[in-house]
Amino acid sequence: MEADKNPYADLLGIKVLEWERGMARVSAVVKPEHINHMGFSHGGFLYSVADYAFELASNSHGVGAVGITTSMEFHRSSKAGATIEAVARETHLGKTIATYHIEINSDNKRIASFTGTVYRKS
Amino acid sequence: MEADKNPYADLLGIKVLEWERGMARVSAVVKPEHINHMGFSHGGFLYSVADYAFELASNSHGVGAVGITTSMEFHRSSKAGATIEAVARETHLGKTIATYHIEINSDNKRIASFTGTVYRKS
Amino acid sequence: MEADKNPYADLLGIKVLEWERGMARVSAVVKPEHINHMGFSHGGFLYSVADYAFELASNSHGVGAVGITTSMEFHRSSKAGATIEAVARETHLGKTIATYHIEINSDNKRIASFTGTVYRKS
Amino acid sequence: MEADKNPYADLLGIKVLEWERGMARVSAVVKPEHINHMGFSHGGFLYSVADYAFELASNSHGVGAVGITTSMEFHRSSKAGATIEAVARETHLGKTIATYHIEINSDNKRIASFTGTVYRKS
Repeated sequence: MEADKNPYADLLGIKVLEWERGMARVSAVVKPEHINHMGFSHGGFLYSVADYAFELASNSHGVGAVGITTSMEFHRSSKAGATIEAVARETHLGKTIATYHIEINSDNKRIASFTGTVYRKS
Repeated sequence: MEADKNPYADLLGIKVLEWERGMARVSAVVKPEHINHMGFSHGGFLYSVADYAFELASNSHGVGAVGITTSMEFHRSSKAGATIEAVARETHLGKTIATYHIEINSDNKRIASFTGTVYRKS
Repeated sequence: MEADKNPYADLLGIKVLEWERGMARVSAVVKPEHINHMGFSHGGFLYSVADYAFELASNSHGVGAVGITTSMEFHRSSKAGATIEAVARETHLGKTIATYHIEINSDNKRIASFTGTVYRKS
Repeated sequence: MEADKNPYADLLGIKVLEWERGMARVSAVVKPEHINHMGFSHGGFLYSVADYAFELASNSHGVGAVGITTSMEFHRSSKAGATIEAVARETHLGKTIATYHIEINSDNKRIASFTGTVYRKS
């Protein structure tokens, strides 16, 4: 996996800030096309930013990892122009299953939380 | 809320097929820019399609509804060119809290499942 | 796996009503010791009833299945004396991963929803 | 809410170790009746321990809080005789919605993770 070849991340303008074994940090700016009918960043946009950090962190060990389940909690809304940052950390790395917690922040406040579990192909 | 004014849905090419009280059906085609590094549709793309059906269904009662938690399970992968359809159905409509289950299908097979809970502003 | 040898199910008084390939139906009565400080059945009790249906359904194929992630949504409360019924149905059966949706009802009303994913040992 | 008056916690032998504003720490010993057909602590038992920490932490502000959604990830199994400890921490405290992350450990290893969201009655 190469961090600079992800068309979907390009479409949404997600940038990789850090990528190490078991962790990843990405960021994106909320643009007018990421806004829902209430003027706030769309849940699908925030999820996609978090999911990309999850994908990078879970694929950082040289073993292909496929997302099987995720849960997400939305705490605060964010508006166009805001910068979103997502940090993925490894909570458990098993032989076939691994779990990651992702914090999503904006303006130094937690705006959402994401938990993802992968199946690792050995 | 008007179904034809959602910039994020436009960005991803999501179309509304049905929208009634407590339900919504949407579809989208997986394009090359929705693909991850393994050649399959990105989890964030599938989530965004399901989330839009969830948003429409939960906002179908004339009361503003805000997503607070979601969970998603990924069953099968889909490739560029595939058509994805998401159907949201209301499982429980309470005064302040409501829950929806969304089925995501492609080629007559269930590819993912989504559960979303909203807070309803009264 | 034998449905009649589960000490935890015995402790909580959970009975198996139906158990077939890919499905299971169980029930339990809310007793005074299953009540929380507000007088309603404890979330952990409702979860345990649903989880037992999930365990039975996912272990119905002769292959050992281990729960890896679950999500649960609570819709209505129930009081001491109420009978709770949980039905688990198979949403997706893959070679290594399978997902089940469990409906929890009481008095003909949906009181909670549960989604569980297992890893199957082959 | 009084920590020493919870019949369900008594039934499962859950003890309160710490309880402050926005946090709680509880523990329990896995007994033979908490074991599933594979000889490991039942998922419903681990959930109930975590859920009690969640209930205490979310009801620590003098405002009634009701669990609406939870997700749980199981990382490792534990056997009869093991001591389980669950720590709940507040991730976000909003006026009507709050979210908690609960870590479940045994023998200095993370065995499960739990995320819970409540509706706060004002």
